[in-house]
Amino acid sequence: MDTIQELGEFALIEKIKTLFEQPADALGIGDDCAVIPIYNTNLLVTVDTLIENVHFFSDHPMEKLAKKAININISDIVACGGVSKWAFLSLSLNPSMKISQIETFIESLQKSCASRNIYLLGGNTAKDDKLSINITLIGQADKPILRSTAKPNQDVYLTGEIGCSACGFYAIKNKLSASDKCLERFLAPKARTDLIDQIKPYATAMIDISDGLLQDAEHICSSSNVGIDIFLENINICENQNLNDIDKITFGEDYELLFCADQKDRSSILAISDVKLIGRTNNSKKITIYNNGRIIIPKKYGFTHF
Amino acid sequence: MDTIQELGEFALIEKIKTLFEQPADALGIGDDCAVIPIYNTNLLVTVDTLIENVHFFSDHPMEKLAKKAININISDIVACGGVSKWAFLSLSLNPSMKISQIETFIESLQKSCASRNIYLLGGNTAKDDKLSINITLIGQADKPILRSTAKPNQDVYLTGEIGCSACGFYAIKNKLSASDKCLERFLAPKARTDLIDQIKPYATAMIDISDGLLQDAEHICSSSNVGIDIFLENINICENQNLNDIDKITFGEDYELLFCADQKDRSSILAISDVKLIGRTNNSKKITIYNNGRIIIPKKYGFTHF
Repeated sequence: MDTIQELGEFALIEKIKTLFEQPADALGIGDDCAVIPIYNTNLLVTVDTLIENVHFFSDHPMEKLAKKAININISDIVACGGVSKWAFLSLSLNPSMKISQIETFIESLQKSCASRNIYLLGGNTAKDDKLSINITLIGQADKPILRSTAKPNQDVYLTGEIGCSACGFYAIKNKLSASDKCLERFLAPKARTDLIDQIKPYATAMIDISDGLLQDAEHICSSSNVGIDIFLENINICENQNLNDIDKITFGEDYELLFCADQKDRSSILAISDVKLIGRTNNSKKITIYNNGRIIIPKKYGFTHF
Repeated sequence: MDTIQELGEFALIEKIKTLFEQPADALGIGDDCAVIPIYNTNLLVTVDTLIENVHFFSDHPMEKLAKKAININISDIVACGGVSKWAFLSLSLNPSMKISQIETFIESLQKSCASRNIYLLGGNTAKDDKLSINITLIGQADKPILRSTAKPNQDVYLTGEIGCSACGFYAIKNKLSASDKCLERFLAPKARTDLIDQIKPYATAMIDISDGLLQDAEHICSSSNVGIDIFLENINICENQNLNDIDKITFGEDYELLFCADQKDRSSILAISDVKLIGRTNNSKKITIYNNGRIIIPKKYGFTHF
């Protein structure tokens, strides 16, 4: 084993996590956000990068790219039960990029930030041969919701419909037709800020679906030391026919919320619109996927970079 | 005017600054760090990017690159009179990169962070065709020192020796010989954490020399609405003979501190080792450079990306 590709993304992150001592009074590497207690509140900090021809195609509309860039960060803050406050934008740009393009990008970013009361307070600009967008977003939460606090025998819920982003990506890549909904979900996904206030009182653990449902569910399992049974027939999966269900639920980039809650809260939670009960935690420490009573073994669980 | 190159880096930043409303209770775009008041202290936040073949050569030793990456951020926190606390690392990597290379990088970064009590709390990893390093660093300062608070008729001081980084870069680029000092200053510059406690009681305004002395001095002028007379003969300039003095002082990447202070504090400040009085603020709103009594008009002031 010699290269990063052979090592893999999560082994690299694990290497970094092992090497760097984590402070006793803050939550560092290993959740959607870092959690830093300050006086009687907590700062939440998250960083995400979008690189041209890695995360997006060169013809990704700039107005939608800006929405995506800020929403994938907002989604991390939401997944920790927080409110987004301050953003920092690092832009690497090709000097031959048209001013009108970057103007469209920053105008759209401004609208997205303003509509959520997020202030852009700084960043960095650099020359590069292509466009890269790196956003650091700082939020605040009095009581953060973590990945690591699920218990066995809790219900597992998923918001919204998943797989639409996968189908949108697949259609764009292969020049196929897809619904506006699918295209929009890949090009400009929205963080579920609309649901967080209703979910927050009940969620015992939460994560956003960025790397694929199964992989993100596994993150809850490994962090909380639980297993999860997932019932495929209960998941609201995109109806587009270009991909199969496993491909749809393992692509990621849905930015829906996966959360656990006590069974006593089930009726209250199912009264929230756009939330479905899709599984149950247990002591097994692994993910088991059922499709109408039969166990399915998927070939992959989600997206990794290397 | 059609491209980013024609627009220029500072006009792009100005465009962003104009578009995004800044909050009344925090200091956003336009200083070394953003300043966010939290209870009775202030968070300082800075972001910097290093891109392969833009900011560093492909054969930049990984151990030194890590030191540089964290120190250029620490330098921004120091320039605002703060203490660095929490770091976030975004790495974009070529999957064919050797594990041993990235191990050297993260081990060196860990040492630099540990020696300054900085905790790495998160970040991001992504695939790319080359190496990019983006660090967000959060610090704290009870009384931040800004660029915008210089007054006319104050003394202007510079720490250390400048131009060494320029000479180191020039030697590496053109395969010339240079002293170890020059090479080290380009490859692994150190933030002046050693001087900040002595300078802090006196500095009325401060900036670090990242883009070149004249350009960074201009940032103080425009932010504080003052002018500065700079006396070239008083500046401690690197003795390497490959570049002329103006090229040396306008290259940047020295990470020395340029600060203003009341004249009454002059003797106390000159008692600090490695600090020289190099100029004086005035009402002119522009930089004037004197060389032994004669005015010099430099062809350039510093580094811009586009």
